Amino acid sequence: MAEKSRPGGRTARVRAQILAATVDLVAREGVAGFRYEEVAERAGVHRASVYRNWPDRDELVVEALAQYAARQVPFPDTGDLRADLVEFLLGQAAELAEPVGRALENAVSNSESEAVKRTVRRVLDRRLETVRTRLERATDRDELQAVDPLFFAHLVAGPAHLAHMHGVAYGRAEAERTADVVLAGLRATSTTRHSREERG
Amino acid sequence: MAEKSRPGGRTARVRAQILAATVDLVAREGVAGFRYEEVAERAGVHRASVYRNWPDRDELVVEALAQYAARQVPFPDTGDLRADLVEFLLGQAAELAEPVGRALENAVSNSESEAVKRTVRRVLDRRLETVRTRLERATDRDELQAVDPLFFAHLVAGPAHLAHMHGVAYGRAEAERTADVVLAGLRATSTTRHSREERG
Repeated sequence: MAEKSRPGGRTARVRAQILAATVDLVAREGVAGFRYEEVAERAGVHRASVYRNWPDRDELVVEALAQYAARQVPFPDTGDLRADLVEFLLGQAAELAEPVGRALENAVSNSESEAVKRTVRRVLDRRLETVRTRLERATDRDELQAVDPLFFAHLVAGPAHLAHMHGVAYGRAEAERTADVVLAGLRATSTTRHSREERG
Repeated sequence: MAEKSRPGGRTARVRAQILAATVDLVAREGVAGFRYEEVAERAGVHRASVYRNWPDRDELVVEALAQYAARQVPFPDTGDLRADLVEFLLGQAAELAEPVGRALENAVSNSESEAVKRTVRRVLDRRLETVRTRLERATDRDELQAVDPLFFAHLVAGPAHLAHMHGVAYGRAEAERTADVVLAGLRATSTTRHSREERG
């Protein structure tokens, strides 16, 4: 493990700079792409400071991403599933626009390190738990029939991810349109399937 | 531009090996991450062969990805939109599982090169055209109201991308569920909006 630091001290500041630089570089170049020299340069520290604190490359990535695991995109519960879903989607889109969002995407898709994968998995599991909890409340209130949270999460979040990946705008209008179509589609297919029978 | 090669000759073979190695490495490490030494090693050629043919790094990436632009995931037209959409989604999922699919994703999200971005854009534009054409036929036959092809493409393809990114299985069951929910949702929201008014 990396050495302990006193919060607020010089060591802590250097470590925070190194971790932030790592997030930026993983965002830009991927987990396998960045080099310690670049981290040091971007953090404004000596290369030795990076090596001394994180002799293991995967550990550096894990610790840089772990900061992120503590944060969460909120899925509010105002009782209005459609409005809450729109907020959740806008939160995800905002996060994707930050370096840490892209770093996480690069880490999840490209890392071969078990430790990095575990860290990413922890972030994703927490997010899925947030979705599951909100959907259960919606089901309790008969806003929606029971639905697999992972399927739901992928369906609603897909457009924000693809828009971000392709450099296309994603704002409130896109989030609302997505929420409307997905919620209407789930209601039509899970309750009566009348849409397909009537029109299909 | 890189030197011309005689099809089937040794030069052509070496070039094909180099381009395939580049796709593999861009898939694994991103556009900025891979090194010429790795390309040469993976292709089983001298490093000088890579430098001689592609002194410009971006040009190497562009040419490696351009092979891909010639291919297309088909969106068939049997007259059954749901069945055709399922085939289209399974085709996309299969492509994502190949190195070239991941290389393209890395290129689109991480490259700062205008030439690389143009190449990726060309691939995406062609795909969007395929979607637009199939949707117009569906509208002509009253299978579906007119819908923005980009929104449609992102909505239906999102789950396959996220499942792939997160290492989750995506097969026929997932493609069918996605097609059912999205088509039902589009029908419910674009024609009568009765789903939201009845149940929301």
